[in-house]
Amino acid sequence: MEIPLKIIILFTSVIRVINTSVVINRFDDDDCELDAELVEEIASYENVTKRIMEEIRSNFGEVMYNEYTRFIDTFGARPSGTEVLERSIDHMINLTKHHGLNDVTTEELQVPHWVRVHESASMLQPHVKNIAILGFGSSVSTPPEGITAEAIVINSFDELDKTDKKTIEGKIVVFDAHYVTYGDTVVYRSQGASKAAKKGAIATLVRSITPFSIYSPHTGGQYYEKNVPKIPTAAITLEDADLMRRLQNAGDKIVLHIKMLSTSDTKTSRNTLVDLKGSVHPEKLVIVSGHIDSWDVGQGAMDDGGGMMISWFTPVILNILKLKPKRTVRAILWTAEEPGLIGAQAYLKKHMNDLDNINFIMESDEGTFKPLGLDVAGSKKARCIVKEVLKQFAPINKLTNSGYPGSDIVIFVHQGIPGASLLNENERYFWYHHSEGDTMNVQTMKDVVDCAAFWAAFSYVIADLSVDIPRQ
Amino acid sequence: MEIPLKIIILFTSVIRVINTSVVINRFDDDDCELDAELVEEIASYENVTKRIMEEIRSNFGEVMYNEYTRFIDTFGARPSGTEVLERSIDHMINLTKHHGLNDVTTEELQVPHWVRVHESASMLQPHVKNIAILGFGSSVSTPPEGITAEAIVINSFDELDKTDKKTIEGKIVVFDAHYVTYGDTVVYRSQGASKAAKKGAIATLVRSITPFSIYSPHTGGQYYEKNVPKIPTAAITLEDADLMRRLQNAGDKIVLHIKMLSTSDTKTSRNTLVDLKGSVHPEKLVIVSGHIDSWDVGQGAMDDGGGMMISWFTPVILNILKLKPKRTVRAILWTAEEPGLIGAQAYLKKHMNDLDNINFIMESDEGTFKPLGLDVAGSKKARCIVKEVLKQFAPINKLTNSGYPGSDIVIFVHQGIPGASLLNENERYFWYHHSEGDTMNVQTMKDVVDCAAFWAAFSYVIADLSVDIPRQ
Repeated sequence: MEIPLKIIILFTSVIRVINTSVVINRFDDDDCELDAELVEEIASYENVTKRIMEEIRSNFGEVMYNEYTRFIDTFGARPSGTEVLERSIDHMINLTKHHGLNDVTTEELQVPHWVRVHESASMLQPHVKNIAILGFGSSVSTPPEGITAEAIVINSFDELDKTDKKTIEGKIVVFDAHYVTYGDTVVYRSQGASKAAKKGAIATLVRSITPFSIYSPHTGGQYYEKNVPKIPTAAITLEDADLMRRLQNAGDKIVLHIKMLSTSDTKTSRNTLVDLKGSVHPEKLVIVSGHIDSWDVGQGAMDDGGGMMISWFTPVILNILKLKPKRTVRAILWTAEEPGLIGAQAYLKKHMNDLDNINFIMESDEGTFKPLGLDVAGSKKARCIVKEVLKQFAPINKLTNSGYPGSDIVIFVHQGIPGASLLNENERYFWYHHSEGDTMNVQTMKDVVDCAAFWAAFSYVIADLSVDIPRQ
Repeated sequence: MEIPLKIIILFTSVIRVINTSVVINRFDDDDCELDAELVEEIASYENVTKRIMEEIRSNFGEVMYNEYTRFIDTFGARPSGTEVLERSIDHMINLTKHHGLNDVTTEELQVPHWVRVHESASMLQPHVKNIAILGFGSSVSTPPEGITAEAIVINSFDELDKTDKKTIEGKIVVFDAHYVTYGDTVVYRSQGASKAAKKGAIATLVRSITPFSIYSPHTGGQYYEKNVPKIPTAAITLEDADLMRRLQNAGDKIVLHIKMLSTSDTKTSRNTLVDLKGSVHPEKLVIVSGHIDSWDVGQGAMDDGGGMMISWFTPVILNILKLKPKRTVRAILWTAEEPGLIGAQAYLKKHMNDLDNINFIMESDEGTFKPLGLDVAGSKKARCIVKEVLKQFAPINKLTNSGYPGSDIVIFVHQGIPGASLLNENERYFWYHHSEGDTMNVQTMKDVVDCAAFWAAFSYVIADLSVDIPRQ
C-alpha cells in the first residue's frame, strides 16, 4: 500500500490505522440505534453468510489460494508501467472467464514507468563497507560517476530545520528517524529529499520504514516539491542507519559513495472491473478492491497480491454459488497504486458523475493475515449498519473508524462514499513491506482463505440489503 | 560459530545444543553428592561473586559494552586471513594493556584466506528473476562466463540417493531441506556439494540454514570430499528455495544462471592469549574463550564479537577488581574459527603436552543474549561441582549436558578436559547467523553486560576453588 503526499498532508493525524494495533478511533459507536426491522433483516442473512464462508473454507478457498500462488509465482513483481503488469492483468481477465464470470472490462489510463537500472553505495570513511540501498520510486539518478560526499545523520525534520544550511550544504543527509507508526515515519521517505535539498543537501538516504530488519532496505514512493532541486534518494537498512549514527556520535567523519541510475517515462495500463450484476439495482455498486501492481522488489504477494485476489474472488465465488445480490458487486483491480493511487484517481475522475451509485467501497491493502474485522468510514448510521452486520461474523467483528480506511479508496471516502478496509493481524506487515521480503512465504492458506470467506460473505450482505448504506 | 565436518560426523546425534530450546541432555544430574566441605567452600564465594557481578553491572559493564560497540563499528567483518582481522587483533592487544593487563601474547598459525570477489545468480526460466546468493566459504568459482543449467529441487540426501544419476547429471541441485535444528540441517551446506557432485551435479544452491528470513542468504563453511569434483556451492534464501520448489511441483522447467568468483590462499594469523596469572598455581589454567574472526558479511557482532568480548573482559575485570584467583584465568581470542576451528586446532596441537594443566575450558559462541546458565561437558563430579557453583547465580543456573558444548572447545573436551559453553536466550540466533543481519542491532547492552558479569564471576570461582575440576 502507498500513501500519496496529498493524503499524507490531509491526514497526518489519523493515518495510524495501518498497523491495527495502533488504530485510533475518532468516534464511539457504542450507542447505535437501528430500526428493529433492519436489525431483523440483517440477522436473517446469517444462514447465507455461514454458507458462503463454509463453501469457501471447505471447497473453493483452496482453489483460490492455488490460483493466487500460481499468479504470484508466474508474474512476481508487477511494477507500474511494465509489460509483466499488463500480462498479469490479462491473466486475471482470463481467470475470471475461466471461472465462469464474463462481465470483466478494463479502463485504460496513463501510468508512471520508473525503472531501477543500477544502484550501489558504499561507505569510504571511516572504513570501507558496502551499504545496501534501494532507491525510492521517482528518484532521479546520480551523475554517471556517482556522488561522493560527506554524510550527516539527521534525526528528524525538526533537527533539519534547526541545523545551519552551511552544515548541510554539499552533504548527503542520512535521515535516521526510528519507526513509530507508518504514518508518522513515512514522511522521511516521501518528503525527505526535497526538505533536505532546500538546505543544500545533494542526496538523501533514509532509514527504512520498518520496525524490524534483517539488513533489508524498503523502497516506496517519494515526491519532489516544485521548484526545489531534485536530488537522488534511497532507503538504507536500520543496521546501517544505526551504524552511521554511532560513527557520527563517536566523532568519525563519514564519507559515502552513491551511484543510482533509473529511467522514467509513461505507459498505458488498465484498471480491471469484474462485475456480478445486481438482480434489482444493477446500476448500484458495492465495490471490493485491491491493487494488482507492486513495487519492483519481492513478489508483491502481500502488497497487494492477497488483497487483489480476495477482492477478485468475491464476485467470482458469489457467481459460482449462484448468489446474485440486489446490487452489483464490482471487484476492481486497481493499477498503479504504488506510484500514488494513479489507477484509483483515474477511476474517480472517469466516474465522477456516477459516484452516487457507489453504495459502499471496500479495499484490502494492508495484508491478508488472520482477519479481524473492518475499519469503516462513513456516517454514524453507516457505521452502525456495518457493526450490526459484523455481529454474525464474530470473532471477525472488530470495527474501527480511523478516518483513513485503506489507500486507493480513501479518495472515494473523501467524496462522501462510505467504505471499509480489512483489519487483520498485520503486526509484521512492515517487516516485509516494499522489500525483497514481500513473497508468498509471508502468507498462509488458512489466513488468506479466511479473509476471502469474510470478504465475500460481508460484501454479499451489504450488496443485498433492502436499504442503501446511508451517506448521512 | 562453526561446526567442522569431522565434528559433525562424530556428533550428529548430539549437536542440538545450539538452540537452547532444544538441548538434549545425556545425563540426569539430580543425584549429585558432593562433600559437605566443598559445598560449604563454594557457598563461601557468594559475597565475591555478588561483588563481581555488581561491579560489572553498575560500573565497568558499560565501558566494556562501549569498547565492544566501538570494536565492531571500527573493524566490521573480520574474515580469516584478512588484514582487518589482524588489525582487530592488534586493537584487542592494545586494549588489554590500556585496561591495565600486560600479560597478553599471541601464537602464530597459518589460516585459510578465502575471498568472495563476485557472485550473482538469476532464474532464466520459467521467468527472469534475480536470485540472491551467498557463496559458502571455500567454494570454487564458476567458469568466468558462469554456469547456465537446469535446476532440480531436492529435499534431502535420502531423496538425492534415491534419484537416478541421469536425472541429476549436468544440473544445478537446489537443496531445499527445511530448518529443523542447526545440527540436523547444516549438513546440506557443509556436505551438499560433494554429495551432489558424486551424482553428476555441476553446482549446488542450498536453502539457508535458518528458521526465518526476510530474503536473507546465510553463508558458512563447507567441505569438499577427496577425489570428488569440486563444484560451486552457495546459499539461497528460504523465499527462493520455496519458489523453486513450487515451480518444480507445478511442472515448470527451472533454468538458472550462476556466476561466482573467489580467490583462495593461506595467510598468517594469531590466537591471542590474555592471562591473569594464578596466585598459587599459575601453571593451571581456566580458559574462557570466543573467536575474533567472523564471516565476511554483517559485522560479526553476534558471531562471535560478543562471546570474544565477554571472554576477553574476564581476566581484565578481575585484574581491575584486584581479584587474583589461585589458578590462571586465560582468555583466548581464537582466530579462524569460521573456516573450521583452525585457531583452536593449532592451540591444541601446540599445547598437547600441557593439556593436563587445563583445569576447565569455557566458550561463548552461541550469542550473548540474556544469560541462562551453562552447557557442561565432563565427568559427573565435574558437572556436580558446576551445578553447585551455579546455585548462587540463580536465575542464571540452568545446566545442560549436551555433549557438544560450543565449537572451538569441543576438540579440547574430547581430549577429556571438562568445559562449558554459555546458554542464553538465543532463539533468534540463526535468524542473523552468517548473514548481513549479524550486526550490533541484535545485541543489547543489558544482555551483554549480564553475560559478562556471569562469565567473569563464574570463572573466578572455578579458578579459585581449592580443588581442581576432576576429569573422572
